[in-house]
Amino acid sequence: MAENNKKYTIGIDVGGTKINAVLFDGEKALMYYMLATPKDNLEHFLIMLKAVVAPLVEKTHEIKANVAEIGIGIAGVFDSGGRKMLNSPNIPIINNVNLAERIEKIIGLPVRIDNDAKCFVRAEALLGAGKNYQNVYGLIIGTGIGGGWWLNGQVYQGAHRGASEVDAMIIDSATGLNVEQSYHKIMQNNPGKVAQEAIIGDPLAEQAYDELGRQIGITLANIANIIDPEIFILGGGASASADLFLAKAKKEMSSHINSTEAAKKIKVVKSKLGANAGAIGAALLCEAGRNS
Amino acid sequence: MAENNKKYTIGIDVGGTKINAVLFDGEKALMYYMLATPKDNLEHFLIMLKAVVAPLVEKTHEIKANVAEIGIGIAGVFDSGGRKMLNSPNIPIINNVNLAERIEKIIGLPVRIDNDAKCFVRAEALLGAGKNYQNVYGLIIGTGIGGGWWLNGQVYQGAHRGASEVDAMIIDSATGLNVEQSYHKIMQNNPGKVAQEAIIGDPLAEQAYDELGRQIGITLANIANIIDPEIFILGGGASASADLFLAKAKKEMSSHINSTEAAKKIKVVKSKLGANAGAIGAALLCEAGRNS
Repeated sequence: MAENNKKYTIGIDVGGTKINAVLFDGEKALMYYMLATPKDNLEHFLIMLKAVVAPLVEKTHEIKANVAEIGIGIAGVFDSGGRKMLNSPNIPIINNVNLAERIEKIIGLPVRIDNDAKCFVRAEALLGAGKNYQNVYGLIIGTGIGGGWWLNGQVYQGAHRGASEVDAMIIDSATGLNVEQSYHKIMQNNPGKVAQEAIIGDPLAEQAYDELGRQIGITLANIANIIDPEIFILGGGASASADLFLAKAKKEMSSHINSTEAAKKIKVVKSKLGANAGAIGAALLCEAGRNS
Repeated sequence: MAENNKKYTIGIDVGGTKINAVLFDGEKALMYYMLATPKDNLEHFLIMLKAVVAPLVEKTHEIKANVAEIGIGIAGVFDSGGRKMLNSPNIPIINNVNLAERIEKIIGLPVRIDNDAKCFVRAEALLGAGKNYQNVYGLIIGTGIGGGWWLNGQVYQGAHRGASEVDAMIIDSATGLNVEQSYHKIMQNNPGKVAQEAIIGDPLAEQAYDELGRQIGITLANIANIIDPEIFILGGGASASADLFLAKAKKEMSSHINSTEAAKKIKVVKSKLGANAGAIGAALLCEAGRNS
């Protein structure tokens, strides 16, 4: 076998229910591996991270290559150094843990780490639906709501790594209602069933997706009126049923954007990279060394 | 008199009720002049702009100098070229007018033009309360609400010059209520009186300022959760009575910011340059040639 000079990295997307890892060759995911997310204690969590990486490392040995670095995307707010998790919405056992250091110790490779939605937008901007744009906003709608902003070739992090915390956006100060809660309301009634029923014309299910579309539209407009991007890319679980709310969301968004030019020109599209977008974005964290 | 090699510019802040112009020497305002804003027709508006500039031009002749350029700050949304007004909230007669071109023609000097709140933050970031920061958000609360973001040495304009349109932010989708309406509610009851009464402990007046502080706090948090600045600077009419709502606004803001580090570190302060901030920021538009 010829010598392999390609640079391989592993990207891991740590979600509230599963951990998805991809082996990435700089252009595409060669293989992926998935395990359930342990939430009982930190040691178990770290062991599972090592376990999800193992078959991918083995694969690189088969092709006479090595993994140089590991990138990890995970929901939550990091400290300004980008290594310590301050507030995880889904996995409380990692709160106030210097995750990057702990994972480097157990896996034995350099680790870069970032918010999962920021990984999502990095992947979509470099390789997906945002490829031809300089100013791209990614919104993940799933277990939680997450945002990431790609501006001029990098993810915008803010002065204290606290940017794009869109799940905290208040669009109804009286009820505290936001996109996350509307989506959860739909999910509680069995998401598959609601999506199905909305498609065949059940008025209550249609109404639920209409309300979700309205709230996504207001959320996008609030973001657009502050940062005015070229394109919004929607990912996460909800994007699978985007056809049920995308038209409503676009219309609602446009009606609340102050600049008539921006209202007309800002695009809203679905993720192009799909379920592996987050893990690919985590791998790209290493490729480009953007968050060193 | 010695020859004068200083570079002079004129900055004009066009508000809903008055036009304020300053003669600027690159460091400070040498003199200012003020006239009422005409709203009857475009010709009258342009003539008054010429009139407000005249005494400042005359002053430069006295000191054997010349005005090189004129900068203008004005509330509203511009096209992406930054010369045509798309939507003026206070002066409808200038809608869809290529203002920069028209003013250049009547005054006979090169004109640079920008949104008034963006001029405000430019002035505060370069010469005022934001002097030692790279990531500064300015919020004007007056006849209208306006925002401007100073990021890494320039005002962030967005992909279609539609950024920082904070007056369109929805923080109560049920009632459509926002900071602007709460401030107008206070202003309707005679602003001076309410401020006075709030100071001496009238519970209704205190309540009105408390509600204003709450809404400003939510607005700042929504902005902070998206862009995570180092400091917010408040300007406009309301900033004069900032002592009546600033503590409430800060507390409310912190409670809604997702990043505990950002919640602790983001500062909220009053304008340092006061009533001339907008006009100075308009003059700085020329100085730096930032919007050419």
